[in-house]
Amino acid sequence: MPGRKSAIDRRTAMAVLATGAALTAAPGAAADSKRAYRRIACEEGFLSPGVLAQNAKSSTAELQLITTQGPAASLARSLVDLGEERIAAMDADGIDMQLLLLSSPGVQSFHAATATSLATETNDYASAACAKYPARFAALAALAPQDPAGAVRELERAMKLPGIKGAIVNSHTQGEYLDAPTYLPIFEALDALDAPLYIHPREPAGAMNTVMTGPVVGGPAWAYAVEVGTHVLRLIQSGLFDRFPRLRVVVGHMGEALPFWLPRIDNRYRFNLRGPATLRRLPGDYIRENIWVTTSGMNYWPQLDMTLKVLGPDRVLYATDYPFEDQREAVRMVEEMPLSPTQKHALFEGNAAKVFKL
Amino acid sequence: MPGRKSAIDRRTAMAVLATGAALTAAPGAAADSKRAYRRIACEEGFLSPGVLAQNAKSSTAELQLITTQGPAASLARSLVDLGEERIAAMDADGIDMQLLLLSSPGVQSFHAATATSLATETNDYASAACAKYPARFAALAALAPQDPAGAVRELERAMKLPGIKGAIVNSHTQGEYLDAPTYLPIFEALDALDAPLYIHPREPAGAMNTVMTGPVVGGPAWAYAVEVGTHVLRLIQSGLFDRFPRLRVVVGHMGEALPFWLPRIDNRYRFNLRGPATLRRLPGDYIRENIWVTTSGMNYWPQLDMTLKVLGPDRVLYATDYPFEDQREAVRMVEEMPLSPTQKHALFEGNAAKVFKL
Repeated sequence: MPGRKSAIDRRTAMAVLATGAALTAAPGAAADSKRAYRRIACEEGFLSPGVLAQNAKSSTAELQLITTQGPAASLARSLVDLGEERIAAMDADGIDMQLLLLSSPGVQSFHAATATSLATETNDYASAACAKYPARFAALAALAPQDPAGAVRELERAMKLPGIKGAIVNSHTQGEYLDAPTYLPIFEALDALDAPLYIHPREPAGAMNTVMTGPVVGGPAWAYAVEVGTHVLRLIQSGLFDRFPRLRVVVGHMGEALPFWLPRIDNRYRFNLRGPATLRRLPGDYIRENIWVTTSGMNYWPQLDMTLKVLGPDRVLYATDYPFEDQREAVRMVEEMPLSPTQKHALFEGNAAKVFKL
Repeated sequence: MPGRKSAIDRRTAMAVLATGAALTAAPGAAADSKRAYRRIACEEGFLSPGVLAQNAKSSTAELQLITTQGPAASLARSLVDLGEERIAAMDADGIDMQLLLLSSPGVQSFHAATATSLATETNDYASAACAKYPARFAALAALAPQDPAGAVRELERAMKLPGIKGAIVNSHTQGEYLDAPTYLPIFEALDALDAPLYIHPREPAGAMNTVMTGPVVGGPAWAYAVEVGTHVLRLIQSGLFDRFPRLRVVVGHMGEALPFWLPRIDNRYRFNLRGPATLRRLPGDYIRENIWVTTSGMNYWPQLDMTLKVLGPDRVLYATDYPFEDQREAVRMVEEMPLSPTQKHALFEGNAAKVFKL
């Protein structure tokens, strides 16, 4: 494809000229002090000491993924650290601020009372780090949907703490999705507080997880995306965004492929309907207007380029997925992309500042 | 994004200049006789009279989707027709050749003996149409994997019939994927015959299908892609392509999002591995070298552009998904894309001619 290739090269070359020094600067914060935007990373993992200890008591493989024993010990150490070591890594890698999310599956596997108690411990732990480093950390509140009233109380409490900017759930809760009516009070509280909800992956609900296992099919390679994509589409299908039109939902991994599928979902929704539509709008309208996506683990150019074209420049937020992904490499990949300074500002800072009120 | 937008516009403009008349020609075959390529559509549905009748006897929703009764009656009529009506639609819409695939779920839900017998009936039915219209139709052989020895015999028989150019399975067979050892003889036969295998969607295997239902989540809107994507990744994970390095597998719907996920699958495969690799290569290497994708139901520019960049120009084949999608509209959308004449030739004819020996 000589014609095609040269067209891409010209476009890349024009973008290089337009962005100038940004492409040659080293990613480290010290090396690019003239940068016109903060780099805010919006899906960065942590564990509270209480959740780590509770995970260790569990016998399920998902909860034992991150323990202080064995090959994941250094990962566990990185996840619990919200102090100088993490700050030093952010400085070295060129990340100004991390938005902290309780690592999967959070408190959602535990008994309700334990889970709500650990959500409180977790949110206090994250907020303390935000208070100590207000320019470097913000966080989302962990919730225990299996205790809906407790989740609402904890959300209302946590949103008053320093640095807490919304809520996170790690997808299904003991096999249930948030489209079940029992979880409606949580969305009423999010709406009343004008707080965004991040839906982060975990192992798929039991039935699906028997099919999606192994190093190529299981976990973050494929199953996580199926799990969260399914969850978001179930929320859309339930009419949630007709009920709460202001609701902001954020999903990682470049939207879990929803931008890729958007036009087909609308097309086949029309085909699937056997009677009158139950939604006020097309599914894709909610994806475009109620969903924001982050680039966690998906900082690849053709995928980002497509997503920007499908969703527009205001819907995509930078994320690394620290410490599971290489923070410095992710920054380097994005900085080398043919994006204008305006686009980089939106991706790294502007959109996050709006969605999470940072 | 003014900088970005103008870059796209320039690129589009250059492509328009390069492709010239192709962009202004009407899609109808008569209107563009100067076209330098045939338009071959590679995932076009049909039903044999025998399968349609057997479906009607079934009590499962999936099999009753296409019946001669109710709102799908006209769809059933279009699916069974392999004669003048279909040819006239192809002429009007600008399609030179259809590659015919037995519509989902094919014979895979039936008892083994019934299924093999209906596969034979189906392949004879399709081949007769290919013999009558050799320039307009080719077909893939339906198989009944639930009868592996019968499937091998039927594949060997069918590949000698006029117009039969490979095989199709409609994803899982009674809840099992083709990575189970019982299906190995089918791949041995495909390899010996140098015949490609098309993996077409159906409703997901039982456990998954309870989670993915409804007009936004179920069927072709989302669940089909999960089903086939999972199937292909399971094949890769099983080491199938190490065993049969020449094997050609084709999947529709722009690769069921595998091109979108390719770099993340490789990245997380490395992360997921707890011991030595079981595969000779990275999962993405097999996606790039053993998998071809068609554009059925996904003839959208940002998605196609991304896929061409990820897989390269030799791996993507045009398809409509007739009669489930609008054939004329799909042709119009692709003809209006900023593709060079070389790219259009590969997409519409060249790649299909190579993969299916057309």
